[in-house]
Amino acid sequence: MGNFKFTKKEKYNVAIAGATGAVGETFLQILEERNFPINELRLLASARSVGKTIKFKGEDYKVQELTHDSFKGIDIALFSAGASRSLEFAPSAVKAGALVIDNSSAFRMEKDIPLVVPEVNAAAAFDNNGIIANPNCTTIIMVVALKPLHDYGKIKRVVVSSYQSSSGAGAQAMEELLAQTRAWAKGEPIKVEKFQHQLLFNVIPHIDKFTENGYTKEEMKMFNETRKIMGDDTIKVTATCVRVPVISAHSEAVTIETEKKITAEKARELLSKAPGVQVLDNPEKNEYPMPLFVAGKDDCYVGRIREDITCDNGLTFWVVGDQLRKGAALNAIQIAELFIK
Amino acid sequence: MGNFKFTKKEKYNVAIAGATGAVGETFLQILEERNFPINELRLLASARSVGKTIKFKGEDYKVQELTHDSFKGIDIALFSAGASRSLEFAPSAVKAGALVIDNSSAFRMEKDIPLVVPEVNAAAAFDNNGIIANPNCTTIIMVVALKPLHDYGKIKRVVVSSYQSSSGAGAQAMEELLAQTRAWAKGEPIKVEKFQHQLLFNVIPHIDKFTENGYTKEEMKMFNETRKIMGDDTIKVTATCVRVPVISAHSEAVTIETEKKITAEKARELLSKAPGVQVLDNPEKNEYPMPLFVAGKDDCYVGRIREDITCDNGLTFWVVGDQLRKGAALNAIQIAELFIK
Repeated sequence: MGNFKFTKKEKYNVAIAGATGAVGETFLQILEERNFPINELRLLASARSVGKTIKFKGEDYKVQELTHDSFKGIDIALFSAGASRSLEFAPSAVKAGALVIDNSSAFRMEKDIPLVVPEVNAAAAFDNNGIIANPNCTTIIMVVALKPLHDYGKIKRVVVSSYQSSSGAGAQAMEELLAQTRAWAKGEPIKVEKFQHQLLFNVIPHIDKFTENGYTKEEMKMFNETRKIMGDDTIKVTATCVRVPVISAHSEAVTIETEKKITAEKARELLSKAPGVQVLDNPEKNEYPMPLFVAGKDDCYVGRIREDITCDNGLTFWVVGDQLRKGAALNAIQIAELFIK
Repeated sequence: MGNFKFTKKEKYNVAIAGATGAVGETFLQILEERNFPINELRLLASARSVGKTIKFKGEDYKVQELTHDSFKGIDIALFSAGASRSLEFAPSAVKAGALVIDNSSAFRMEKDIPLVVPEVNAAAAFDNNGIIANPNCTTIIMVVALKPLHDYGKIKRVVVSSYQSSSGAGAQAMEELLAQTRAWAKGEPIKVEKFQHQLLFNVIPHIDKFTENGYTKEEMKMFNETRKIMGDDTIKVTATCVRVPVISAHSEAVTIETEKKITAEKARELLSKAPGVQVLDNPEKNEYPMPLFVAGKDDCYVGRIREDITCDNGLTFWVVGDQLRKGAALNAIQIAELFIK
């Protein structure tokens, strides 16, 4: 077991590092919605955001600069300020006594740092040294659906293609898609800064950097993080991660091969009972998960469930989740809730 | 061999059934670009389009009503007016002596009717009884890339997820996406008529009708048509077909398993030499196929070529093709060109 001692209290001092970003904003919404027991709320960001005012439960909070001294008296520090800032400042937060839940990729594959999706491996969270990593958004959305299927039929291989929304790349990237849309409608030139190419009316098969084997880092996260979260290094995941012109919520076409056959009916039954999952699978009524309708929802929605016609023990389905909520802020807050319960 | 006799001439009388649709317009563009040897051009459509004027090589052509008597003297009839009109009128065209190349799904799986992609199975075209079927757009774009890989390594299984553009559902569907975009920019209500749901800022995992096994017809076309075109009933294809807010050109994430190992390098070499295929695979320069840049091009573009980390003889890649061109009109005209050469 890790050596970090978390002390239960009635209310907690909570810091948010990266409070002005897309995930930061969602942290605040969710803390408010879930009435998280907060004593002091400290909003931290880079120097250029200092002095900005952010509303929380009707009160104004001033953004302070994220420094090594930011965490005195903090019980829980939620980080979403990029991997380099997590690497730099998370150890200071732990030293100050805070439990860090980090949304970046900085610590996810570190041996001594748990990588947690509460519906899948809640127990792992308690074996920590002060830092708990929040997985990649696309991976979280997939594993909440994989977990009940793996428990029943043992998954051997996953082939997944993603349809990832613009806000997965941050608030400014989402704004770029909206700005491109307005510019197109006015017949004005379309500006490209945050994405590699124009996203409006396009799809871009490139998320995060390329690695030596031809997969992107985002695709390799789905391979590596799925194994760590599921606690099974025999699961293999091949992913193609693609950006699509959607504002919020990621979609994924998932095809799995299992050791034991899972019928479509059995899959529907297992997924219906699974925590964090909603089955929306009524093709005769044109009902299946779509990002436009899943955005803003907490659960991951699964539909298009069918037995794979190309593989004896194959199953294929479609899962959609709000990547700012379950894919990021909500999952991190659910991890914190494991400790305060 | 089929019993239809095609007679070579210097110039041909060509009819287009469905001349006012998205594919119909593309037929005209491509016939002009390729300087197809036309004597008479007859533009046919439903009664409500009669009298419309369409330009071809600078001259005005009046649209005539598609009837059983429309094909007198016609040598080649290009059909893209929907399956029910093909079923009704294609036999009349053949009776009048025309070679019908049909872009609908009406005849594709008929035993005596060839289903042709010239780069894959040109020879099959000549064994016809007057009707040749043009495959589904998504299937054509995939099989031009699969063919050289199959010839080298024998494909056993294909897992494919599509990212299909709005114009695959017709000119009015494409216009609906543009209208939704303009309405959103003006803050006006968004109208949904042609698609099942709003397409702007959304993805819809539903193309064509659902079948009993949970796959859509579009997805089953990829299974059935691939086998028929490739002439190999052992190939298995599981597809998830998804509409994305793109104007033109379909994208596909394809993962294959082969009998013989195909390295990424070998795949690049095979695809580089393949007719109708361009390899665009320079991740270090952010170069890979995307619909915004492939729209309007004749070839299918392949990139993101990599060995599958989850399967010994696995390969995965990304292919993009203009579904109105290679996926429909161009492929049909290339079939016609097999006969006039």
